[in-house]
Amino acid sequence: MTLNLPYGRVYNFNAGPAALPVTVLEQVQAELLNYGGTGMSVMEMSHRSKAFEAILHAAETDLRALYSIGADYTVIFMQGGASLQFSAIPANLRGVGQSADYLVTGSWSKAAYKEAKRHGATRVAFDGAPGQFIHVPRNGEAVIDAQAAYAYICSNETVNGLAFHDVPHVPAGVPLVCDASSEFVSRPLDVTRYGLLYGGAQKNAGPAGVTVVIVRRDLLARTPDTLPPMLDYKLLSEHTSLYNTPPCFGIYVTGLVFKWILAQGGLEAIARVNRQKSNTVYTAIDQSGGFYRGHALPDSRSDMNVTFRLPDEALEDQFVKAAKAEGMDGLKGHRSVGGIRASLYNAVPLEATTTLADFMREFQRKNG
Amino acid sequence: MTLNLPYGRVYNFNAGPAALPVTVLEQVQAELLNYGGTGMSVMEMSHRSKAFEAILHAAETDLRALYSIGADYTVIFMQGGASLQFSAIPANLRGVGQSADYLVTGSWSKAAYKEAKRHGATRVAFDGAPGQFIHVPRNGEAVIDAQAAYAYICSNETVNGLAFHDVPHVPAGVPLVCDASSEFVSRPLDVTRYGLLYGGAQKNAGPAGVTVVIVRRDLLARTPDTLPPMLDYKLLSEHTSLYNTPPCFGIYVTGLVFKWILAQGGLEAIARVNRQKSNTVYTAIDQSGGFYRGHALPDSRSDMNVTFRLPDEALEDQFVKAAKAEGMDGLKGHRSVGGIRASLYNAVPLEATTTLADFMREFQRKNG
Repeated sequence: MTLNLPYGRVYNFNAGPAALPVTVLEQVQAELLNYGGTGMSVMEMSHRSKAFEAILHAAETDLRALYSIGADYTVIFMQGGASLQFSAIPANLRGVGQSADYLVTGSWSKAAYKEAKRHGATRVAFDGAPGQFIHVPRNGEAVIDAQAAYAYICSNETVNGLAFHDVPHVPAGVPLVCDASSEFVSRPLDVTRYGLLYGGAQKNAGPAGVTVVIVRRDLLARTPDTLPPMLDYKLLSEHTSLYNTPPCFGIYVTGLVFKWILAQGGLEAIARVNRQKSNTVYTAIDQSGGFYRGHALPDSRSDMNVTFRLPDEALEDQFVKAAKAEGMDGLKGHRSVGGIRASLYNAVPLEATTTLADFMREFQRKNG
Repeated sequence: MTLNLPYGRVYNFNAGPAALPVTVLEQVQAELLNYGGTGMSVMEMSHRSKAFEAILHAAETDLRALYSIGADYTVIFMQGGASLQFSAIPANLRGVGQSADYLVTGSWSKAAYKEAKRHGATRVAFDGAPGQFIHVPRNGEAVIDAQAAYAYICSNETVNGLAFHDVPHVPAGVPLVCDASSEFVSRPLDVTRYGLLYGGAQKNAGPAGVTVVIVRRDLLARTPDTLPPMLDYKLLSEHTSLYNTPPCFGIYVTGLVFKWILAQGGLEAIARVNRQKSNTVYTAIDQSGGFYRGHALPDSRSDMNVTFRLPDEALEDQFVKAAKAEGMDGLKGHRSVGGIRASLYNAVPLEATTTLADFMREFQRKNG
């Protein structure tokens, strides 16, 4: 089978960096040597130029429209990925003598917890590790300290394929901090439920090197004046992401993806397609009579990262190779957990998932 | 006058982000939707994929060839720009109770000094501010403490247009740390003279969002185990720039620029052209009978950023506008100092500088 996609492209199931919309890439390509009549690439443009300031402003405005973000929240485009946020969050939000609560539901919340713990009091309010990270906490399973500086979740665990489908209960006055990296701009979220919400662009929104951080403005008062500037939410917010040279080209591509989502009908519309995509693959798993075994329990399944196993590792290797030969790339599970992972971010088309589901049935017929 | 450059491009004198080689941009454009038969853009590729690992490896190998970097130095591709380095350098290299020496020759070394001072003992070993930053220290003007944790210079001051043409004398055992951002890969440097040398890509080497840091390996032993991972040279070096997702696309473009420099004949060859370019503009200044007044003293002039004044600010505004109308962009001086600044990085062609020099003579004839 050959896919015969435009430009000889493949179906890209990478977990991140990941698929981008073809029309966005075509626009980037068309504008690459001369952006909007400026006579230069966005890569060659001063970050203080009118052209770039318009790009940055549009990216923020469109993101605010997508999530209905109010004026009581600031939007910051940062560098350094989630790893930098793991350091910045406790450094900005956890006061001297305060403790922070972490809900550990998979690899990424665990990494965030470990980093927070290096520098101050940190409590595990839920630990999914003993259960092999197969579900997020149900009612009452996570009890958050009413005195916590904040409560931290990772709303979609990329490695494990888990997602929160409801916002967990947090005591009044405790801000909820959310790493939404791998579900960022993939479905509507009520931003007012969060004190801080962030996402790396390189899953649903753009290339690696841009992290979007949405912070409730009153929390900026907590930032101590001792932080390295690149970790200082207050300073970066005051300078509207222009304290120093931002990752201009990445912000430009991310802004184009925001416009593409708006053109698809916004987050409600894109979430409907995303759900349809994940259902297509989960159905293939559930109808396989146990040949494919989903990792997450059904109520905690991620629409973004579908993780599953085959009867043995040799078959998993064979599956990944055979899929690749048929134009489906990036299906190998994370090296820390193995198995198969199909990441179905915004730019992965519905046809990619029906093609994958067909392939799964055929692979089972031959090897089951 | 119209330039009639390919793609309707202008001569780009931006101080950074700045001009990139047209052939590099053409290659990026050609590969944008399908890199090397992978069926995807570099922006869509896993940073753990073979294709990206080859890109990263080639970028490092080519940089090592350009600067003749030995095995006793590590090369790290980081995020966060020089501002992050301002924090990382003292945090990694200055031990408890130690002091660091800074040679303050312009805006950027001053900013680095101010950041270092927030967190520990910091001494000014040379201060060019009282002299309005018109020259770098001459013999004996900067006396570096033999006990200093390190001595810090900015080898090319982008805002002020100053450059060190000789490596300053440093007592034995004191590592020299150098912000080479705006002269990075623009001329040969003897890396063995430095303990640490870094440069943001967005001047001579690529888009914003990539900072290349070259560190003598023995200095990694100084890194304390308390740093945020994104500031930790030791950790990032151990993970060969893949501790977390790096700015993949920026590294790819930067790697293409390294290959382009090698194809031009390497740093000796590119430095010869760069010197010819700056001479063209400095000659126009020096032959103007005082209409154009260069900022830096001749022995401290930068080949990268040529800064000068006109008789008054109104004429300067007029100069910038008239130049822009003729296809020469980015000539306005930094907002903190005013005047004119022509940045002549690697990708600015010689013809851009002869065109500018002609324009300067014509502008003087009309307005002098």
